Amino acid sequence: MRWLADVHVALRPGIADPEGTTIAGGLRSLGYPVTEVRAGKSMRVAFEADDAAAAETAVAEMCRRLLANPVMEVATWQLRADETPGDDEAIPA
Amino acid sequence: MRWLADVHVALRPGIADPEGTTIAGGLRSLGYPVTEVRAGKSMRVAFEADDAAAAETAVAEMCRRLLANPVMEVATWQLRADETPGDDEAIPA
Repeated sequence: MRWLADVHVALRPGIADPEGTTIAGGLRSLGYPVTEVRAGKSMRVAFEADDAAAAETAVAEMCRRLLANPVMEVATWQLRADETPGDDEAIPA
Repeated sequence: MRWLADVHVALRPGIADPEGTTIAGGLRSLGYPVTEVRAGKSMRVAFEADDAAAAETAVAEMCRRLLANPVMEVATWQLRADETPGDDEAIPA
């Protein structure tokens, strides 16, 4: 069974975020009253697992082993079964 | 009034995603049966706006003008009022 995990990786609070600071500066120079921007990464992972519990365990492991650096980052995710047939369809944006 | 927008920027379907392909290869080499990974960016933007309609309009403009490249990317966001007092608290991950 195929699963889709929307993984979001954000820097922990207090960790300096120069990318976010730069984006905030850009938005302010365009005239928007932005107080802070925190930048992160998002990943949509499509994978096979037998059931929801196995899928949840797999995503947690993937985050810990590869997708996020637990020292500086926090990973969160939403998991759902992929109901669309076939392997070659585009993943909707 | 302060608002928080969680903005997610993803490549449009069909646009080549070498970062996602590399992440998928890494996960496969760790033994996970991953079929596809699509990589994107996430940003938490804190800004001032008078009301929900003005905030929504501002975020849509920010995405169009700076945060996403509409030719190759799709931006989506969730918007909510920031109820926490003060300006200096850390934005939770």
